[in-house]
Amino acid sequence: MKAGIFYGPHDIRVEEVPDPKIEKPTDAVVKITHSCICGSDLWFYRGITKREKGAVVGHEFIGKVIKVGKGVKKIKMGDFVIGPFLWCDGTCALCKKGMSSACLNGGGWGRGGTGGCQAEMLRVPQADGSLFAVSKNKQQEKLMPSFLALSDVMGTGYHAAVSAGVTKGSTVAVVGDGAVGLCAVLASKILGAKKIILFSRHEKNTKVGKKFGATNIIVERGEEGIKKLKSMTEDEIGADCVLECVGTKEARSMAYEAVRAGGRIGCVGLPESVPDIKASDIFWKNITIGGGVSPAATYIPKLLPLVLSGKINLSPIFDLTLPLLELNKGYAAMDKRKAIKVLIKLQ
Amino acid sequence: MKAGIFYGPHDIRVEEVPDPKIEKPTDAVVKITHSCICGSDLWFYRGITKREKGAVVGHEFIGKVIKVGKGVKKIKMGDFVIGPFLWCDGTCALCKKGMSSACLNGGGWGRGGTGGCQAEMLRVPQADGSLFAVSKNKQQEKLMPSFLALSDVMGTGYHAAVSAGVTKGSTVAVVGDGAVGLCAVLASKILGAKKIILFSRHEKNTKVGKKFGATNIIVERGEEGIKKLKSMTEDEIGADCVLECVGTKEARSMAYEAVRAGGRIGCVGLPESVPDIKASDIFWKNITIGGGVSPAATYIPKLLPLVLSGKINLSPIFDLTLPLLELNKGYAAMDKRKAIKVLIKLQ
Repeated sequence: MKAGIFYGPHDIRVEEVPDPKIEKPTDAVVKITHSCICGSDLWFYRGITKREKGAVVGHEFIGKVIKVGKGVKKIKMGDFVIGPFLWCDGTCALCKKGMSSACLNGGGWGRGGTGGCQAEMLRVPQADGSLFAVSKNKQQEKLMPSFLALSDVMGTGYHAAVSAGVTKGSTVAVVGDGAVGLCAVLASKILGAKKIILFSRHEKNTKVGKKFGATNIIVERGEEGIKKLKSMTEDEIGADCVLECVGTKEARSMAYEAVRAGGRIGCVGLPESVPDIKASDIFWKNITIGGGVSPAATYIPKLLPLVLSGKINLSPIFDLTLPLLELNKGYAAMDKRKAIKVLIKLQ
Repeated sequence: MKAGIFYGPHDIRVEEVPDPKIEKPTDAVVKITHSCICGSDLWFYRGITKREKGAVVGHEFIGKVIKVGKGVKKIKMGDFVIGPFLWCDGTCALCKKGMSSACLNGGGWGRGGTGGCQAEMLRVPQADGSLFAVSKNKQQEKLMPSFLALSDVMGTGYHAAVSAGVTKGSTVAVVGDGAVGLCAVLASKILGAKKIILFSRHEKNTKVGKKFGATNIIVERGEEGIKKLKSMTEDEIGADCVLECVGTKEARSMAYEAVRAGGRIGCVGLPESVPDIKASDIFWKNITIGGGVSPAATYIPKLLPLVLSGKINLSPIFDLTLPLLELNKGYAAMDKRKAIKVLIKLQ
């Protein structure tokens, strides 16, 4: 089969590799129909985080089950499935607590002998915990981008909102207008936020943000942006919930300023360049900071019904579709912000 | 009137000072009947934090209203009242959000021209927002310690539990067996925790902890203590919620180790010696950290009914009662851990 391979910064190649096989009774093998490129993939693509030459790439997929191990009970041959960006058993104490991204028997694609998801096929460990089947009558082409978004980006945006305690009536500020930030806007709407303020200065992204439920857009950054945000809140106290969807020093700093006393910040951007948090700073303002790697598998059963009922449509975040062979072109488009998120459509 | 005055570390004196007067229409003056000494008072008593020589002391009180300003509407002359350790208007945007400790028109005792609460009388700014009257038929002597505890310590323990997201069925670990930690145990019980594990090695405190609802006691600290805690949780994942009621490096470090992936830490100990928090550490474990200065005024209306109905009795945290003239003796007793919490009974 063909699979994306990391050769070095700005150099992703698609090459022939051996087909995956069932290795453990709890495995399944999926023929991937759609994959995509994540903002977090840009970390290694840009050479900011290290990745070994020859490593497989990609962690988001949907597709059809073509092999199942003997121990797989829930998932059947031929099922059309959504897979989260981390596999999990769905039964350990942490999965039961809703923290499937820390599953005691879980792991990530490309680790533990698994392949990457920017590929034609994939061996899925813990198939019963990791895969979510979509009923036959709902396997419509127009829903595919939304199914695919549940693999990571929507689950991650949703985790930002959950971690920031967004609830009915909340005033929310979203820092970051990339695909995750936009999904965080939509998640806030789902959770009942009254006011959703998106920091955005990219016209295309702003448009999607508004479609997803942003009630206010702020193009200014830094002090000016914060001033504008505060003017949108009662007594200029700031936002109840801030969703930090970038993971840079600047974004985190915006979040601290934007949140009101007693408010909550949900962080989902990889904190590669985020400085340490001063314990006394958050204490005296009574700020709560949460977030991390989204338990996407936990959220799929919550979010899938919203996709199936047409309540949410995530296709607007994908603004470029490419075949697997043009994978590197997709990375380049996202790197240069020419695309919000690239969908890889397989044969 | 007589009031406690800070002269320097280990030197609190009771001296004659001018009686407080109404200064603003929203003021009231309270004749204090009961005050107490807080664990946080030990910071300056021990010389760890700075306090000016001649500063007034104390921030917890209950008493009788003896003067009211013309703008005071809710509170009446003669009312028996509970006052929180920070005053607030109860009407600003932050008070309405439940964050009265950050009231836009609030402040702390000893600041803004107010006196301390280890004194015979006190001018209370924003009396309508800051004072909570107790009905006449409930002004029983046996309830006084519980009323007094709502001024700070119980509100602070409750804030630890709220900030850590304690809810029905939670497994809670409480770090710190001082008065706040013990109240945090009780707060966890009120909020429906299933398992409440208290780190405690002081026999007297352990006894109160058990009375307040601790289901398990761990005397070990450090690695040994964490190992024991984990053995008490399913799959050894750690506690859902950790209540950090000390505010030292060691206590915070225990909290990080004790909490499960995706769990929450509520911090209420003053973070004077707490090191910075590594953003990546909490991110990869999906830990949420919250807490800060308790909005005691917000919690009094929630907790007072529990005291009045007899559902909670906070008197066990006070194990030494002294007259105001022996204030320094009270500080010394707490400093040497000879008393959990000292009640100052005024004439």
